[in-house]
Amino acid sequence: MAIVEIKLPHHRYPVVIEPGLLSRLGTLTRDAAPHDLAALFSDGNVAETFGRSASNALQQAGYAVTSHALSPGESYKTLDTVRALYDVMLDGRLERRSPVVAVGGGVTGDTAGFVAASYLRGVPFVQCPTTLLAMVDASVGGKVGVNLPRGKNLVGAFHQPALVAIDTDTLKTLPPRELRCGLAECVKHGVIRDADLFSWIESNVDSILGLDSDTLVELVRRNVAIKAAVVMEDEKESGVRAHLNFGHTFAHAIEASQSYGADTGDAAFHHGEAVSLGMVAATKLAIDAGRCDADLLSRLVALLERIGLPTHADNLAPTDQLIDSMRLDKKVADGRIRLVLPDRLGNVFISSDADDDAIRAAWSAVAK
Amino acid sequence: MAIVEIKLPHHRYPVVIEPGLLSRLGTLTRDAAPHDLAALFSDGNVAETFGRSASNALQQAGYAVTSHALSPGESYKTLDTVRALYDVMLDGRLERRSPVVAVGGGVTGDTAGFVAASYLRGVPFVQCPTTLLAMVDASVGGKVGVNLPRGKNLVGAFHQPALVAIDTDTLKTLPPRELRCGLAECVKHGVIRDADLFSWIESNVDSILGLDSDTLVELVRRNVAIKAAVVMEDEKESGVRAHLNFGHTFAHAIEASQSYGADTGDAAFHHGEAVSLGMVAATKLAIDAGRCDADLLSRLVALLERIGLPTHADNLAPTDQLIDSMRLDKKVADGRIRLVLPDRLGNVFISSDADDDAIRAAWSAVAK
Repeated sequence: MAIVEIKLPHHRYPVVIEPGLLSRLGTLTRDAAPHDLAALFSDGNVAETFGRSASNALQQAGYAVTSHALSPGESYKTLDTVRALYDVMLDGRLERRSPVVAVGGGVTGDTAGFVAASYLRGVPFVQCPTTLLAMVDASVGGKVGVNLPRGKNLVGAFHQPALVAIDTDTLKTLPPRELRCGLAECVKHGVIRDADLFSWIESNVDSILGLDSDTLVELVRRNVAIKAAVVMEDEKESGVRAHLNFGHTFAHAIEASQSYGADTGDAAFHHGEAVSLGMVAATKLAIDAGRCDADLLSRLVALLERIGLPTHADNLAPTDQLIDSMRLDKKVADGRIRLVLPDRLGNVFISSDADDDAIRAAWSAVAK
Repeated sequence: MAIVEIKLPHHRYPVVIEPGLLSRLGTLTRDAAPHDLAALFSDGNVAETFGRSASNALQQAGYAVTSHALSPGESYKTLDTVRALYDVMLDGRLERRSPVVAVGGGVTGDTAGFVAASYLRGVPFVQCPTTLLAMVDASVGGKVGVNLPRGKNLVGAFHQPALVAIDTDTLKTLPPRELRCGLAECVKHGVIRDADLFSWIESNVDSILGLDSDTLVELVRRNVAIKAAVVMEDEKESGVRAHLNFGHTFAHAIEASQSYGADTGDAAFHHGEAVSLGMVAATKLAIDAGRCDADLLSRLVALLERIGLPTHADNLAPTDQLIDSMRLDKKVADGRIRLVLPDRLGNVFISSDADDDAIRAAWSAVAK
């Protein structure tokens, strides 16, 4: 077992990481958000498995549980779903101190979290992420919200959880492609902040992909600690939290060029795959600009390929379209594209210096 | 001019009170929430008057303003309105630093405030209340939100404004009934916390109802200061903020017995009128319980009657129905009705001691 304590200026909560943890969810939740009632929102794909475990554990700890399975997929991360969940909350007569417990990946956590943030102006939120991406990324930071037809995450809140309970056994039934996608964010954490983590992943790729229990706990612990450190420095995303966007401005352009709104399973590139390509492109740009040693790119590409993540692709949109899309990204300031670039393993900086030619050259490193 | 500085643990903002203040709204907003863009949401009843003044002032200060008039009335304080306002925000390409400016009463502030709290996970909020009730009550405290079909204010957030700009000249075109309703909350502030304020209102009723400019500024300043002091002590409503509910458990029962969802203009009792009756009932209960001197009731009734607020009514719902309704109020703990009761002018306490007979006797004091 591992625990990472998240200490924010006016809130603290534990991230507990353990194989089989869902069986202890009731007692943990009782410590974090004691009440007679709880709402349990599970991703439909895991409602009958992990959702049921969570429900049993909560009931054993004395909660009367109102359960609801969410239709899986990004296309249901909407205000309509939020409205339906408010009705579930009202049907269950949930009150200000009743926790909302989310079991699932990022979509479930984001949607249920926004319900928790806004029902009765905010109720306690307990997050049980069941994907690696949600464990190492979405479960720390307090960002919750839903999409609007015109774009992702346009509505939401910062609502810090009362507890994050990570059962690493859930990774053992996760589709391998989703495990790899989560690893893209872990590699990112290494590049932006922790050379030791990067080396550790290099040394442990086989154990990770082989789903070794102790290795998975350590993987999640290390990555949660990094995300937590960044968030603790910068809760509302004004400074170093931007470093987490390494690879993401390129990735968002790839994702935007795919059809939006369809289930992510249909997309050519899942988020982690787009991030993988984006990290390669950003690193290439940093090297071309003379700001970073070429060794980093070869180490990065080698690790991503061992994981099974893409480092180049022949089906990307035309480069000019991708660059236009980057310009629409939220990180644009005064028309210049702001990029997070590495200068050495474990350190990044923010640059608005790259012109279109430099960005085009970076894309050419992955578009082949 | 008067300024009340609101100092919360992690946020501070000014409440500026001045006749004609809307003409200076642009420069004030530029200090509080500088950006190139602003959204302006006005109550449809004042969009052509105060909304236009606000828009002009914002434009003169360099904001490109996206304006939208809200359909007036509580029945439009809904998630559908919120969704429509998100579209207005997107049409105007409003960004994370673009302020949302609300011009109107509580419904406008609550609805626009929830949009500000949730669009892009929160943007700056500038509140320009144009009713006395919104000035002295809704504009301080950070509570924003909307109704669901099943109840009021079931969805929302705590989102503190960047600025509250109160133009007391807007009171000069407010329907007199709404001015009186706002005064009910002012009298409440006096009873719960400030005997001097109560005396000041007694001495100045005629100037207030006569809309004397200096008196209105002083009235609003004193009441904002009290609401602010309570909120500063208790931002998230766990302790003394409950004192603000003096009269409100009775009032909510009256309001719940009226048809819900229709425009408030159609209701027998507006909120302030129900609060007026509720304060009388609560004070009667405190006196019957031997906790309060009978003088307070006569002084309270006399002041409310001079203002033109009801102190008794012959068209209330049956008492048993009202008591049942009180039991459904959010302030119920363990089945006992929690009431805020005065023990002397300027001081209240919380009691769960009253049994149904005592509450019935309190109702009989107003139901005649």
